[in-house]
Amino acid sequence: MASISTVFSNSSPFLSQPLTKSRKSDSFAVTTVSFQTTSRVRGGRNTLRVKAGLIDPDGGKLVELVVSEPRRREKKHEAADLPRLRLTTIDLQWMHVLSEGWASPLRGFMRESEFLQTLHFNSLRLDDGSVVNMSVPIVLAIDDEQKALIGESKRVALFDSDDNPIAILSDVEIFKHPKEERIARTWGTTARGLPYVEEVITNAGNWLIGGDLEVLEPIKYNDGLDRFRLSPSELRKELEKRGADAVFAFQLRNPVHNGHALLMTDTRRRLLEMGYKNPILLLHPLGGFTKADDVPLSWRMKQHEKVLEDGVLDPKTTVVSIFPSPMLYAGPTEVQWHAKARINAGANFYIVGRDPAGMGHPVEKRDLYDADHGKKVLSMAPGLERLNILPFRVAAYDKTQGKMAFFDPSRAQDFLFISGTKMRGLAKNKESPPDGFMCPGGWKVLVDYYDSLTLTGNNRLQEKVPV
Amino acid sequence: MASISTVFSNSSPFLSQPLTKSRKSDSFAVTTVSFQTTSRVRGGRNTLRVKAGLIDPDGGKLVELVVSEPRRREKKHEAADLPRLRLTTIDLQWMHVLSEGWASPLRGFMRESEFLQTLHFNSLRLDDGSVVNMSVPIVLAIDDEQKALIGESKRVALFDSDDNPIAILSDVEIFKHPKEERIARTWGTTARGLPYVEEVITNAGNWLIGGDLEVLEPIKYNDGLDRFRLSPSELRKELEKRGADAVFAFQLRNPVHNGHALLMTDTRRRLLEMGYKNPILLLHPLGGFTKADDVPLSWRMKQHEKVLEDGVLDPKTTVVSIFPSPMLYAGPTEVQWHAKARINAGANFYIVGRDPAGMGHPVEKRDLYDADHGKKVLSMAPGLERLNILPFRVAAYDKTQGKMAFFDPSRAQDFLFISGTKMRGLAKNKESPPDGFMCPGGWKVLVDYYDSLTLTGNNRLQEKVPV
Repeated sequence: MASISTVFSNSSPFLSQPLTKSRKSDSFAVTTVSFQTTSRVRGGRNTLRVKAGLIDPDGGKLVELVVSEPRRREKKHEAADLPRLRLTTIDLQWMHVLSEGWASPLRGFMRESEFLQTLHFNSLRLDDGSVVNMSVPIVLAIDDEQKALIGESKRVALFDSDDNPIAILSDVEIFKHPKEERIARTWGTTARGLPYVEEVITNAGNWLIGGDLEVLEPIKYNDGLDRFRLSPSELRKELEKRGADAVFAFQLRNPVHNGHALLMTDTRRRLLEMGYKNPILLLHPLGGFTKADDVPLSWRMKQHEKVLEDGVLDPKTTVVSIFPSPMLYAGPTEVQWHAKARINAGANFYIVGRDPAGMGHPVEKRDLYDADHGKKVLSMAPGLERLNILPFRVAAYDKTQGKMAFFDPSRAQDFLFISGTKMRGLAKNKESPPDGFMCPGGWKVLVDYYDSLTLTGNNRLQEKVPV
Repeated sequence: MASISTVFSNSSPFLSQPLTKSRKSDSFAVTTVSFQTTSRVRGGRNTLRVKAGLIDPDGGKLVELVVSEPRRREKKHEAADLPRLRLTTIDLQWMHVLSEGWASPLRGFMRESEFLQTLHFNSLRLDDGSVVNMSVPIVLAIDDEQKALIGESKRVALFDSDDNPIAILSDVEIFKHPKEERIARTWGTTARGLPYVEEVITNAGNWLIGGDLEVLEPIKYNDGLDRFRLSPSELRKELEKRGADAVFAFQLRNPVHNGHALLMTDTRRRLLEMGYKNPILLLHPLGGFTKADDVPLSWRMKQHEKVLEDGVLDPKTTVVSIFPSPMLYAGPTEVQWHAKARINAGANFYIVGRDPAGMGHPVEKRDLYDADHGKKVLSMAPGLERLNILPFRVAAYDKTQGKMAFFDPSRAQDFLFISGTKMRGLAKNKESPPDGFMCPGGWKVLVDYYDSLTLTGNNRLQEKVPV
């Protein structure tokens, strides 16, 4: 289940968690994180050090794989003479991810040792013995014919569907694509109907090709949203420009409602209480592949803009940007990727909800993942020790206040949980949600979206999974 | 495929590996391991330090969970008043494993945090931040009825099938048993027909119960083989008594032939060359659950005894003991468990073959795992950095010498690969293998075993999987 639906789920609510973190329980103590010192703040039993600079990227240095301007012409010439692979849309999304260093310290599509470590350990051991998190395979599949075409060449050129050269992959390694094992170890199931699996893996080739990437140009989509696609390097500059001394990331793939807004505002308040002077929110919608019944990126971005325009979130302390990764719907495995990538963009706090990156089981009548496993796995994940995990507090519509509020189990009868299904039903029927559920401008975008579907006969509404 | 069948498989042979280890390739450099110093030996580019004492157990101290003699009576009384769970044979085997510290630092059946770390990371992070390997779930399943019976009790008594009290589980935690996810993440498949899954998981309860174990008596089987069941503590004493300065473990679940013997003898020779004065072989057959077509433990032990009697292995430098774990046939995931448990018994070198703990895919016509993944995963596994991995050299029958020898690809035509299936066929038909394949005394045991099956009409011969 996704953010919206889970905040409003009426199954056992995951209650407010303290903002401190220790390793043995669900409560987290920031004091386990090593900060660079600028000033000292009292933070409970231990002294908390608040950092000045942003958190270091994984591996110490942000990987950037786009060829510098002066060398592009030469590299394009080189590409013309190499064996060619044509990339799918989702291959290109992963190349985008790699090119900007979201997956630092990865320097290209995974070779077998990285692939195996990812599948078995959700982490990579670096040459210096340190460990970084890496939970989802970032791989490029090829078929027998493409493998034969590459032959003994150690370099391969990657082209888009319009036959434009996009990148060169060097020092390549071709190895078997164990699809069943990849699926089982990434999703914890091999049931048919997993959106990413059906789209990307089932019909993919039986080989994987790894290597070092040189990307010939920055990746652009020319869909009017490129201005929101800040790279980790650009985000770091923006965050530094704003003088952020804490950055808290919020991953989402759904419209923002006032429950989310409450959570983000409250997180900022608590970070201020802890002694941070200028915590900045990275509101970071996922921009790559999503399943058919999710609201498309362009509509979500319109909705997010309205939320800022309507003053629900403060633009001065919020950076809205698009995270270019495809969505796997791989629950506890994927949430690690979502968190790790945000470290590379400068975030040192990560907000995690109920059942992050989860969905309904594609075959059985249940959720695919235990709703609490995501935050538990995230809190124990190798390579994420530096990141402060902020568990989601459950918000619901408080009928007595006529607004979204943190759920209080002592007066449960006062709260209304609005499920994702219910919310969509309202928007489809152009009905209004209770006052205070979502800002009117944002709600109108949703109504318009569902309207556009009815008008075009587009079937993105057909939901394969219960929400 | 298991040791025997794989050594003699005629698919692409996995060739001799150097005995030195570095992290970036298949070759391993002992110098990455930190030894306690006694003497210095030249070991290639770096200076190698040879240790005097045995390798430390995981977590620093060997866990032993058997209640001391004076307190047993009292504990048995306590057990009588607690809610009761009756254990299966395989539950008891795991309890045996836990009770003697093979899974150190685990102190009982896994709680959820250990279970999740095992599934996702194949390792556990300890309170001091250090990491130990733990790749297979060691869990106790209960059903709804048993859960109800336990109620709010924080202590539970564990009984065997004859209603004898065996152990007390304290500070219990009951959590959901996500069977599909457990299977997918452990085996990398959910195909029907996995022996351990069918035997242990499919019909198990929907809950798992973790906690701290107090085992009331040392576990005994009274099958005439208990004298071979040395605990890690007893093995450490024996190895120290023999003055071992290197211990190399050989896991097996099949009869020993001269190819294995050659490998073990050759390993010892190479360890001596490296400067060790007294390397001891831990010949360590697995004693728990095995699939129907494996040769049963009692016959294997007879066969191993003959191999030592016939002088194929030197009893002075060999310790034969039984490893009490059940067999999962979980390939790269399980081989980590096999290696980790041997660290706890004092082994600092581990011999790994082609496709360790692998088998044929239960449904498709292929091996379940890539034959090389086991050794690759093992060499990269978190928490096993202290262990020296010795990849298996391929031995085959050299027709020119009339004996088992390391395969030499430059004269491939001289070698005969005898598959496990072929070997069994010969033994069943009371035919002899080529001279020098197995010592005559050992071969006779095998012939007798298959003879006994024909006599009793026992159907252990029906093989579900290709070998």
